[in-house]
Amino acid sequence: MFKGKTTHKEFPELIENGKILGCQEETTTGVKRFKAMDKKGVLKVPLFPVNDARCKNQFDNELGTGQGIVSAIYGMHVLFAGKNVVIAGFGHCSSGMALRARGLGANVTVTEVDPIKALQAKFAGYNVMPILKAIPDADIILTATGCNHIIPAEAEVFDKLKDNVILGNLGHFDIEIPTKELYEYAKEIKPIRTNVEELIFPNGKKVYLLAKGRLANLVLSEGHPSEIMDMSFGLQSLMSEYIVKNSKNLKPGMIDVPTDIDDKVGILKLKAMDVKIDKLTEEQYNYIHGYLEGT
Amino acid sequence: MFKGKTTHKEFPELIENGKILGCQEETTTGVKRFKAMDKKGVLKVPLFPVNDARCKNQFDNELGTGQGIVSAIYGMHVLFAGKNVVIAGFGHCSSGMALRARGLGANVTVTEVDPIKALQAKFAGYNVMPILKAIPDADIILTATGCNHIIPAEAEVFDKLKDNVILGNLGHFDIEIPTKELYEYAKEIKPIRTNVEELIFPNGKKVYLLAKGRLANLVLSEGHPSEIMDMSFGLQSLMSEYIVKNSKNLKPGMIDVPTDIDDKVGILKLKAMDVKIDKLTEEQYNYIHGYLEGT
Amino acid sequence: MFKGKTTHKEFPELIENGKILGCQEETTTGVKRFKAMDKKGVLKVPLFPVNDARCKNQFDNELGTGQGIVSAIYGMHVLFAGKNVVIAGFGHCSSGMALRARGLGANVTVTEVDPIKALQAKFAGYNVMPILKAIPDADIILTATGCNHIIPAEAEVFDKLKDNVILGNLGHFDIEIPTKELYEYAKEIKPIRTNVEELIFPNGKKVYLLAKGRLANLVLSEGHPSEIMDMSFGLQSLMSEYIVKNSKNLKPGMIDVPTDIDDKVGILKLKAMDVKIDKLTEEQYNYIHGYLEGT
Amino acid sequence: MFKGKTTHKEFPELIENGKILGCQEETTTGVKRFKAMDKKGVLKVPLFPVNDARCKNQFDNELGTGQGIVSAIYGMHVLFAGKNVVIAGFGHCSSGMALRARGLGANVTVTEVDPIKALQAKFAGYNVMPILKAIPDADIILTATGCNHIIPAEAEVFDKLKDNVILGNLGHFDIEIPTKELYEYAKEIKPIRTNVEELIFPNGKKVYLLAKGRLANLVLSEGHPSEIMDMSFGLQSLMSEYIVKNSKNLKPGMIDVPTDIDDKVGILKLKAMDVKIDKLTEEQYNYIHGYLEGT
Repeated sequence: MFKGKTTHKEFPELIENGKILGCQEETTTGVKRFKAMDKKGVLKVPLFPVNDARCKNQFDNELGTGQGIVSAIYGMHVLFAGKNVVIAGFGHCSSGMALRARGLGANVTVTEVDPIKALQAKFAGYNVMPILKAIPDADIILTATGCNHIIPAEAEVFDKLKDNVILGNLGHFDIEIPTKELYEYAKEIKPIRTNVEELIFPNGKKVYLLAKGRLANLVLSEGHPSEIMDMSFGLQSLMSEYIVKNSKNLKPGMIDVPTDIDDKVGILKLKAMDVKIDKLTEEQYNYIHGYLEGT
Repeated sequence: MFKGKTTHKEFPELIENGKILGCQEETTTGVKRFKAMDKKGVLKVPLFPVNDARCKNQFDNELGTGQGIVSAIYGMHVLFAGKNVVIAGFGHCSSGMALRARGLGANVTVTEVDPIKALQAKFAGYNVMPILKAIPDADIILTATGCNHIIPAEAEVFDKLKDNVILGNLGHFDIEIPTKELYEYAKEIKPIRTNVEELIFPNGKKVYLLAKGRLANLVLSEGHPSEIMDMSFGLQSLMSEYIVKNSKNLKPGMIDVPTDIDDKVGILKLKAMDVKIDKLTEEQYNYIHGYLEGT
Repeated sequence: MFKGKTTHKEFPELIENGKILGCQEETTTGVKRFKAMDKKGVLKVPLFPVNDARCKNQFDNELGTGQGIVSAIYGMHVLFAGKNVVIAGFGHCSSGMALRARGLGANVTVTEVDPIKALQAKFAGYNVMPILKAIPDADIILTATGCNHIIPAEAEVFDKLKDNVILGNLGHFDIEIPTKELYEYAKEIKPIRTNVEELIFPNGKKVYLLAKGRLANLVLSEGHPSEIMDMSFGLQSLMSEYIVKNSKNLKPGMIDVPTDIDDKVGILKLKAMDVKIDKLTEEQYNYIHGYLEGT
Repeated sequence: MFKGKTTHKEFPELIENGKILGCQEETTTGVKRFKAMDKKGVLKVPLFPVNDARCKNQFDNELGTGQGIVSAIYGMHVLFAGKNVVIAGFGHCSSGMALRARGLGANVTVTEVDPIKALQAKFAGYNVMPILKAIPDADIILTATGCNHIIPAEAEVFDKLKDNVILGNLGHFDIEIPTKELYEYAKEIKPIRTNVEELIFPNGKKVYLLAKGRLANLVLSEGHPSEIMDMSFGLQSLMSEYIVKNSKNLKPGMIDVPTDIDDKVGILKLKAMDVKIDKLTEEQYNYIHGYLEGT
């Protein structure tokens, strides 16, 4: 990930003198920011949202972050089966987490602000409800929304958290879970395991915070497995080559990762995994790319 | 679905005299055709690919066609658990079918031509292999690819089909499964249940064909459940209104369904199902739509 | 299934003159009755609870009745995904139903009276709660408990049923769902589909009753698939032979199906399905049947 | 677990002078041994197979060992999704492992020697085949059989292991995976992570062995979560009390854990988890315990 946003602020001369041929953004959060900049007309470099390539978000985000659930287990040495696990968000990262939490036997509740994602979660069989309704019964709350204050930063809400609840952020900064406010509210904070703190509230309840509200899937683990990062890094490598080769034709603004580069990473990964698939015959190719047959 | 493609051929005068304000296409197959036409520059009406709206393909296609598996069961009165079920394709319809087949206890094999969809299937834990490798062990083969001759139309391939295999198409026309060629190859064809035929091959094996190769999820059932069609029809209703109101500004070519109409259907469906979700607070709205906070 | 209980009442002379060499009981319900009779000392024939053989209850009950969910779908042509489905019971039949309901995308709630079965359901990730708490949100209620009045037969309870709820019994008699009382309470009853009736309550709500409260998995379907009944019937055939050959040594009372007959059915079924498995080597056989090695 | 078998060998006087009131056995392996001793008539103490109580094997074994999969992930920092995972065995421990491996996205193959367990695995949708057929494609092999030499201890078999395969035993001693023979065959053995060794074979392939073939679910973790051990320990506590109170009536041999003690643990656990369930009404109690109603 090229720190494009910081560059705009701190090294504007790099941009102005044309030293930056193009940038790639690897995270959902980053892409949102660059889109906002683009919309405001302040994005001054060609920006490829690598995160939005299929070989990135359907694998690194869904599977890598999804398996991040394992970090939460390991952090607290808890049994996931039978737990009420609240997943905030149902995007690539969070839906992957919901799938894994269910796969480990949890009873999963999803909270969302997007109506269509909420419907997807509902039709996938999850409980769907507002966060305030979900909080009192939650044994574990995990966030991956890209937004802040998913648990509202209010004493009244904190008091409703279930005794011994585990709070973990697997998506974004330490503001999804209101870390600062939780620390302030706790009358006692003590480390109890590596990267796990016990917060004792005025009402006597105990809350377990993973990784100081930072990315538990990375902090409590060793990052996402290399087998999934290879796809993300493969995209970035090929895109770096692409940017260098095509820099003369690139204009500032958001530019999609070319489909053939996305596909190429997929083909290479299949090969690495020794998975064989079908190829369209010429007859089939003509059929699906044409419009003369069929009605 | 407006029969736009047929209109171009048979009623060109309707297009030329401006009587057609805009069209909507409801199926994956249809959208592919219109895209091909658009690419060739022969699409002469404003065309909204309603199929590509989130409220359509993630529900009607995935869930409706997915549950179409039930039609295959009902057609043959078979136990799905323990069956080797081959699903050709891993798009919206077919991945929904794979999910349901697994949910009913089948051992699912996915075949694909798209490397990234193949990887998705592989990482979802399905067997992934070329169709020719999958055929000999398949108890049930179900197609939803939008392409033709998924089972190659060759005697040599037909001979490798497992005795008593069930063949069903849930995606497209009666050419995904090579119906015509199967009929020709069979030395005997007899109806054995409503919409199910037994084909006896020269080698003595029996093959059960659902719905004469036409859409088994519709023919053997009563169409998709109304609870899922309401979203598709809701989109079409709102889009019809949109087209009428905005016809002056619409130009020929593919035009995405506006996001707010897609969202509106989602919101209405949630309300109908009495599912409540969160709303962004003003603070949150500003946070995720801005780029000044965070790094 | 030999109608042993009826025989005791209606044809006692058959028992007394020794014409009955032995009996087999094929259902969970029946076995419970015979156990009660045995406990009271009134069971006068050798009685083999075939239902309790592994090749019976883990297949016919779990998988056959489990797939009976499909009958409920077909009866009402509903989408299972996203529905709140209440499964009463978590025995062989009902846990199979819960698995299938979830596999079809439902949000499943289990009700139980047995604490350990309730825990199993809870740890499997299902919602677990008393039936009265589950009723108001249930879109579909399916019973397989072997008990009566699972939905309490009270107007006050009936009034809390959700409008348009589907009620199906897949386990036992038409008393699990209080059919008689529902009919009495309804101000209007009309058939709306084959084997489905719409009951309109005094409060205006509509309730859909499958198969007049009798076994929906059988009535709305064609019985369990032959591929699963073969195991049940295989057991009965081999047991009939066993009873004839061993009748002289059989005494009245409950007698377990011999393990080797159970295993034999399993071996034959694997062969029929062309599934190969491992065999213990001599070294392994001695190891696991001994106690001299290991600590 | 009381070391009853060792006691028979090393402290026979404790048994002979009646100092041992009764024993409890907590493991599947141990119970098998005591059953073998009982069969041979050499079991000289009252022996309660606590492992066979429902509150033990359906929770500690299925869920605790099942989640042990997480240890294997953590040991190697691998992505489970998309992996070919071979689970040897389909008893309580191993079927729990298969469920979790699938829940984490793996493609699971089960090997068994018991025909009925093999059928259960097959009908649950897993691949079922002999171990020798499964080995070449396995990315991860996990054992929980209670037997030895699940991977045959032969150079020819070792050579067929896939490069980079992970081997973990989660069930029994370090002989399920032939540890000694693997060490002997390797031309190089080096620790690469805590409790993980890399074995380099003469053919150049690398094999990763967890926990020196000992219980990976315990060695690489901190034992099973306390939330599941509480049930096992609860049973042992109540059984200790029972043995003391009833010692005069206990005779040497295998004696089942009384059902009411098993139930009591279940009731207490439900209470601890704050899960409410139904109670039989008097009418229902009479109905299911009687045999006069129904046919």
